[in-house]
Amino acid sequence: MVFELVPALAKKDHIIDLKLSTVLFEDNKLYPWVFLVPRREGVKNMTYLSLEDRLQLMREIALVETVMTTLFTHDQTNVAMIGNKTPQLHVHVLCRTKGDADWPGTVWGHHSEPYPADEKVQTIAKIKAAIEAALRNPAYV
Amino acid sequence: MVFELVPALAKKDHIIDLKLSTVLFEDNKLYPWVFLVPRREGVKNMTYLSLEDRLQLMREIALVETVMTTLFTHDQTNVAMIGNKTPQLHVHVLCRTKGDADWPGTVWGHHSEPYPADEKVQTIAKIKAAIEAALRNPAYV
Repeated sequence: MVFELVPALAKKDHIIDLKLSTVLFEDNKLYPWVFLVPRREGVKNMTYLSLEDRLQLMREIALVETVMTTLFTHDQTNVAMIGNKTPQLHVHVLCRTKGDADWPGTVWGHHSEPYPADEKVQTIAKIKAAIEAALRNPAYV
Repeated sequence: MVFELVPALAKKDHIIDLKLSTVLFEDNKLYPWVFLVPRREGVKNMTYLSLEDRLQLMREIALVETVMTTLFTHDQTNVAMIGNKTPQLHVHVLCRTKGDADWPGTVWGHHSEPYPADEKVQTIAKIKAAIEAALRNPAYV
């Protein structure tokens, strides 16, 4: 079967494709927030991935998490695979700051505020450029 | 510096030590729930780990997540690194079931109910034995 994003993920903005994962953007200006979605059909959570794919996913999480911390002010990073409502494996990678809208609670199901259109385009472009630069490090690719 | 669990994690029940991570038990009978804590000093989130440690952590998450799904009824697994309140890297690995106390929301900061003492001891022993059996698979160690 050919891989396809489920509708809840397909409607998010695309940033870049890595070797295994597609990186998507969460349109919530309260948090710098992206997703990694491994392009494997029928994968509901990580137990559906081979160990080899899991290790590649960790390399890609490492790359994206590091990029996000270099681009955005943060006190902590949150990395999570939940998928209760959207059962296609997607890894949340986001930056948290003390005093943000949900601090110190979690962000899921809580505050959300869309970016102004211009700022969204610029933020996606900034993340994409930084990921492309980081991909020059052969440990990640 | 020598590694030490922070107080919020030190008070949890110990299950087993893997090569990199200590596996701890969450005393909440609403969810089969464990933590992996890499024994590295001063690590607040995964960006503090070397890529080699990250890959080993993924092997250990794979082992523990698979063990949990073989032992407990579940519709989904949740794997998350948050650490807003407890800034020592710890990976939540838990089983979710449709209709559970917080379904389909997340579990953090929500419902909790301690195990009866006997059932806690038995559950920890069951998880430990299953992890020991899984460790005979050389891919994980």
